[in-house]
Amino acid sequence: MKWKRSERLVDMTSHLLENPHSLIPLTFFSQRYQAAKSSISEDLVIVKETFEENGTGKLITVSGAAGGVKYIPTVTETEVREVMALTKGILSHTDRLLPGGYLYMTDFLGDPKMMDRIGKVFASAFAETEVDVIMTVATKGIPIANAIARHLNVPVVIVRRDSKVTEGSTVSINYVSGSTRRIQTMVLSKRSMKSGQRVLITDDFMKAGGTMIGMKNLLEEFDCELAGTAVLVEAEHTEEVLVDDYISLIKLHAVNEKDRTIELEEGNYFEKGGIVL
Amino acid sequence: MKWKRSERLVDMTSHLLENPHSLIPLTFFSQRYQAAKSSISEDLVIVKETFEENGTGKLITVSGAAGGVKYIPTVTETEVREVMALTKGILSHTDRLLPGGYLYMTDFLGDPKMMDRIGKVFASAFAETEVDVIMTVATKGIPIANAIARHLNVPVVIVRRDSKVTEGSTVSINYVSGSTRRIQTMVLSKRSMKSGQRVLITDDFMKAGGTMIGMKNLLEEFDCELAGTAVLVEAEHTEEVLVDDYISLIKLHAVNEKDRTIELEEGNYFEKGGIVL
Repeated sequence: MKWKRSERLVDMTSHLLENPHSLIPLTFFSQRYQAAKSSISEDLVIVKETFEENGTGKLITVSGAAGGVKYIPTVTETEVREVMALTKGILSHTDRLLPGGYLYMTDFLGDPKMMDRIGKVFASAFAETEVDVIMTVATKGIPIANAIARHLNVPVVIVRRDSKVTEGSTVSINYVSGSTRRIQTMVLSKRSMKSGQRVLITDDFMKAGGTMIGMKNLLEEFDCELAGTAVLVEAEHTEEVLVDDYISLIKLHAVNEKDRTIELEEGNYFEKGGIVL
Repeated sequence: MKWKRSERLVDMTSHLLENPHSLIPLTFFSQRYQAAKSSISEDLVIVKETFEENGTGKLITVSGAAGGVKYIPTVTETEVREVMALTKGILSHTDRLLPGGYLYMTDFLGDPKMMDRIGKVFASAFAETEVDVIMTVATKGIPIANAIARHLNVPVVIVRRDSKVTEGSTVSINYVSGSTRRIQTMVLSKRSMKSGQRVLITDDFMKAGGTMIGMKNLLEEFDCELAGTAVLVEAEHTEEVLVDDYISLIKLHAVNEKDRTIELEEGNYFEKGGIVL
């Protein structure tokens, strides 16, 4: 079957979007569409320009025998501001206030469209960082980790509070929770990471950063390196912050349990240079 | 700015793929591209035919004032067979065998590309079912629930084993685990579902189905209805299965702990009519 250019463009776009951060050889497309590589190259110029003009992402062309094309999901500043504003709007409702100054975010974390957009916003910030694995702690960090992972095309490992038979043999560490000062345990399956891997740590909420420190300690047990830290909502904290290098989307500026008000502001995303396109 | 057809096709494809199961008015596209609705309709015919010929999914056009176009992710039989074969290949390695006849699947559940494909396979099976919410139980069901949710564009709710402050007030039930006969607890935030919602239940592994029954009981507490049950791997069980209507991708046919062999076969996906395209 002979493909028309219009059909190739639609199918190529689908294929690229479904395979982010994957090098696709030009021969894959030229065989699939029974078309000359020169035609494929022309198609890719159109896709690249359209992606870049509309903030879909970047197309990187690698030349040579082992070459091909790679779609890198990136976002525009406008998209980040819009995601921030939406998140602030949703999370600032007073009925989200929970005892202890916590925010009810479970429904937000269950919204696939929001998670997809937030995942892409963080993936864009780490688009040029070498990341082999994304690590989070069960349960609430998982949707964000999955969303970032899909856009970066790297696996997710989930740290648990308890050991389960389905994890096989595990490595366990104790750490001190930053805000409650209690000793807590973290467990990770031995098979989940290899030594030398670069790990992006993520979570939905960070107060003093104890959980993040716990995950960092766990990395050391596996001889892995920290590639970065991404937090959806960071809380204002009177204590010293235990983690200094992280990127956040939203900052919980003030919670007044008596007046039942929540003040949210933009996180440090832009300060940390979290933009690629 | 005036858009060329080629650019419109690329951008339209991106927009549709990013917004599955969402009705997009034709005016959205005609305004975005500064093009007549007749041109947009011609573009959509090209996208529709390319999507359908290559197994990307279906485009449904709704006419009238409140009309528009909707992308429905569906898969071909070939894609399902390929996902089944890949999953069988990965999960049948003998070093996955854990005490008690369990399988180590954590790494598989952390693979974003596999989860995306599996999510689409299940979303295709439920493409014509009315689903308002996807429910799973922490921790291992979450990646599958997230992946199905993204393709169906519905929220995920996560049932937990324990209550946490960040969940707000909760509803809790006790149920009997199917295989161990122990009494277990399930907790779900009160705000997570509204009465009358139709819920798709999913999990990574099902033995006798006790967890599924637990989730079904929880649905009743919320006056919600069961829309379907999707399981990644169902185990062969000597006990009576507690759930009779479910769709599975893979069946764990036999585990021999002595010889360290695992036999996997196709689940009941095709028997249950899990194909739309």
